[in-house]
Amino acid sequence: MTDQYIMRGAVGILDSGVGGLTVVKEVFRQLPKEKVIYFGDTLRCPYGPRTPEEVNAFTKEIVRYLSLYPLKALVIACNTATAVALEDVRREVSIPVLGVIEPGARAAVKESHQGRIGVIGTQGTIRSSAYEKALKQIDPDLYVVSHPCPALVPLVESGESDDGSARQIVKQALAPLKEHRLESLILGCTHYPLISSLIGKEMGSEVALISSAEETARELSTVLHQKGIQYDGISKQGEHLFFTSGRPEIFQFIAERWLEQPVTVKQVALPELKEIPAG
Amino acid sequence: MTDQYIMRGAVGILDSGVGGLTVVKEVFRQLPKEKVIYFGDTLRCPYGPRTPEEVNAFTKEIVRYLSLYPLKALVIACNTATAVALEDVRREVSIPVLGVIEPGARAAVKESHQGRIGVIGTQGTIRSSAYEKALKQIDPDLYVVSHPCPALVPLVESGESDDGSARQIVKQALAPLKEHRLESLILGCTHYPLISSLIGKEMGSEVALISSAEETARELSTVLHQKGIQYDGISKQGEHLFFTSGRPEIFQFIAERWLEQPVTVKQVALPELKEIPAG
Repeated sequence: MTDQYIMRGAVGILDSGVGGLTVVKEVFRQLPKEKVIYFGDTLRCPYGPRTPEEVNAFTKEIVRYLSLYPLKALVIACNTATAVALEDVRREVSIPVLGVIEPGARAAVKESHQGRIGVIGTQGTIRSSAYEKALKQIDPDLYVVSHPCPALVPLVESGESDDGSARQIVKQALAPLKEHRLESLILGCTHYPLISSLIGKEMGSEVALISSAEETARELSTVLHQKGIQYDGISKQGEHLFFTSGRPEIFQFIAERWLEQPVTVKQVALPELKEIPAG
Repeated sequence: MTDQYIMRGAVGILDSGVGGLTVVKEVFRQLPKEKVIYFGDTLRCPYGPRTPEEVNAFTKEIVRYLSLYPLKALVIACNTATAVALEDVRREVSIPVLGVIEPGARAAVKESHQGRIGVIGTQGTIRSSAYEKALKQIDPDLYVVSHPCPALVPLVESGESDDGSARQIVKQALAPLKEHRLESLILGCTHYPLISSLIGKEMGSEVALISSAEETARELSTVLHQKGIQYDGISKQGEHLFFTSGRPEIFQFIAERWLEQPVTVKQVALPELKEIPAG
């Protein structure tokens, strides 16, 4: 732990694995002066099929670990953990806590003057109705179509999204959405921004694609400025920390490729989560 | 004053005149459950040519008047007043205070992955460098081009923006911006969203147009939700209040046309601002 963290406070970001790195990338871009401490629970990933009790317990365990560092804000960069644990975590800590669902919902409302909004996500996210609930809480009169796209994560993970057959897979996955005259489509899974150009071609330019990662970073910026706790110094040199419960070399490989910079990764053994920090 | 305001708290919105109604319209759309109390200082409009001391004094006078009502948040929906008085007002009141400049700046950063941002506004706004300062505070490496467009407000006010010559006026006004390969353009004047289609045609579809009114309403939504003070009830029936220091019948005519609903307008005599509310 460096003096910088103590003086400034860092932004804590947690995810079930590497997906939340899309949020990290956007925080680096939209808040380039801030320091990030990330925890990816790669060992227990994915959270989607787990019970709410498990997701809640895992999330709180990670929050307690990250809280050993001086944090000024916390981002739950995982759709499943946001849907299950956001309110609980907000009650447990005194710093601002952001999830990835509300920022996406708010951006979709902003983009949709006739109120016609689509949501795609994993089966778990769509089944939870988390986006639909967030949208209807803002305005019960919105027209919301939610649709699970289980074929898209494997497509991203396969690394074959440039392939000729990829467009066909995306076309099939999105077909049920095309008749709804949508104005915006929430990419309700951290993988989807990686194939946003394919999704955009299929939906057409009149449908605004909403990236939860972009929107969450933007709202983090709003909240830090509103509270007057943004870092106003000159330094742009990052000194970020990344923790994983899985194999650090794999995490490091993915993180460095995606963030386009060297990163420091430390493995945290889960039974020790409640003990002293590894840093 | 009704029981509803006491129980829920309203959103106070102030402007030098009617321009801030673009923010009101977006608050009605993006936060349809919230109540609004608006003050348009039509009698002393425009604020642009006034000294900072005057703008500061006027703004605080209005804030004190609005504070006689139970407010939960305050929006300074005027570029000039935001640039001059935002920080002072934040120190004076205990509720969240939003200006129109930071939301536009943040949205532009989000939209501009290569960091190439344009700003148009009145001469006063551009001379204040308020957007440029807000942008550079986020990231000193951004490429920012600011350009005053004095011809555009008269174009809007003339009501002849559908005219054949209108496109020519817009073309001339924006010409200096076209060579900068901008990714986004901040419409830094509350009038400009009314001719955004003309501006969009001129700049091309690759330049994202940023409406401060849309973005400010979106950030208000973020702040209310983050603090847990959004209204979660079912009612969508608005019972908003509008105050003007000028002639109420003119204000009412403009407000009802723009907001597409009947509004209640009350005139407030300026020397009485510090006295009891007119409502």
